[in-house]
Amino acid sequence: MITLPENFPTTPTVKPGEVWLVGAGPGDPRLLTIMAIKAIQTADAIIHDALIDTRVLDLAQKGAKIIYVGKRGGMASSSQPEITATLIELAQAGHAVVRLKGGDPFVFGRGGEEAEELAKAGIGFRIIPGITAGLAGPAMMGIPATTRKTNHAVILATGHRVKDDQDGENWRALARTGQPIILYMAMKRLEEIMLALADGGLDQNTPVAIISSATMKDEKVLRTTLKQAIHDVKQNAMPSPAIVVVGAIAAIKIDMLVKMSDLP
Amino acid sequence: MITLPENFPTTPTVKPGEVWLVGAGPGDPRLLTIMAIKAIQTADAIIHDALIDTRVLDLAQKGAKIIYVGKRGGMASSSQPEITATLIELAQAGHAVVRLKGGDPFVFGRGGEEAEELAKAGIGFRIIPGITAGLAGPAMMGIPATTRKTNHAVILATGHRVKDDQDGENWRALARTGQPIILYMAMKRLEEIMLALADGGLDQNTPVAIISSATMKDEKVLRTTLKQAIHDVKQNAMPSPAIVVVGAIAAIKIDMLVKMSDLP
Repeated sequence: MITLPENFPTTPTVKPGEVWLVGAGPGDPRLLTIMAIKAIQTADAIIHDALIDTRVLDLAQKGAKIIYVGKRGGMASSSQPEITATLIELAQAGHAVVRLKGGDPFVFGRGGEEAEELAKAGIGFRIIPGITAGLAGPAMMGIPATTRKTNHAVILATGHRVKDDQDGENWRALARTGQPIILYMAMKRLEEIMLALADGGLDQNTPVAIISSATMKDEKVLRTTLKQAIHDVKQNAMPSPAIVVVGAIAAIKIDMLVKMSDLP
Repeated sequence: MITLPENFPTTPTVKPGEVWLVGAGPGDPRLLTIMAIKAIQTADAIIHDALIDTRVLDLAQKGAKIIYVGKRGGMASSSQPEITATLIELAQAGHAVVRLKGGDPFVFGRGGEEAEELAKAGIGFRIIPGITAGLAGPAMMGIPATTRKTNHAVILATGHRVKDDQDGENWRALARTGQPIILYMAMKRLEEIMLALADGGLDQNTPVAIISSATMKDEKVLRTTLKQAIHDVKQNAMPSPAIVVVGAIAAIKIDMLVKMSDLP
């Protein structure tokens, strides 16, 4: 139980007919925001992805519809138009709907697309940002996204292919900034991406850190280099979800008192 | 009051002699995480920056030392070595210390540097990530950091000058990626940065959105372009803290049900 002082602002509740796009953060339920918890507790329909911890879903009220629409590589999943249609249907039927996404809905989470469709359909919605795994995952393993010694910018990028003819040049342009790149959903195409980054001028010894299951019990980190990454991933299974950090920050090792994954 | 189910993981408390580097999120107290709230509630010394809402500080227990070490442009403030020395002294004196920072301690927050100094001094510390204002600020004004139509990457950059001789080329390299750039602490040097980005090839009509006091009561947004930004900022006061979004995403206007700043 969390007791809040009297002057703490009132947290709104999800109303029938509304859809809230809620970020569940990087994994550990303790990294949920107050707004996210209140949303989950007051919704009567929750549409969620694969990356949501059961202890987060257990915040839902009794009798709430819990609908899984996960999209994990290889497994059957709902298409984006199906998900949007479900959100609209539920809201129009008078449900108080939460669309729960790992990380932040607006950072490689298709929250923007879903919000635009909801707006078109005349459904009232809100965005509740969450902590994105690309920043928190490395942080909890002692890797800061920025330090004054290493970088003045940090790039968040998706590993998904965009347009075939631009793909290589896109990666090369990112490499040429010399700034660290944090990759989401990049494990499937890791070899191709590492090669394109090297092709863009990144040194083969550029530090790389791969964080699997950030902030969760089975969290692990692999420290490697641009040259060795593919070899090392073959030797060490790094199951998704994984975040890949490429650049000077990936070599930083701040010794933490205790990691999130060490906590009960 | 927030009631959590029995299977919700126990939240640790700050122990005497420890320092926790805690992210307070973009501004609104409801965007604090459970971990952050518990940290603030169990610390007996809180060292904080300028950007922390009083309602966040009011979470502290009675009698806790509240020490302000803000660094706002022009105003007297503690130097970074002074801040680190204070953290170490307080921890060594047996205090349960929270170092509270706006946004995320590891995203342009010098959390990495402070953590390294704490580690050197043998002080046990933790990192509690927060939602960074560069992502949540635009989100709450209807601007997603990424959409599949507009970008496969997003760049977070600080407006602070790095090394004089590299500064222009750094900005030009970021511009050449064609990806949106989200700027922190860029208002003082806005003209110089806009010119360098144009010099790097960004079209003069590239959309720009400036968000002042993200998620707070006095939040406002200015929509402009690379060419018009300086002129428009002169016509419309955009007090810091401000986030500047440059790129296709800055033109997106998702109509929100209600903004964080509209809430009580």
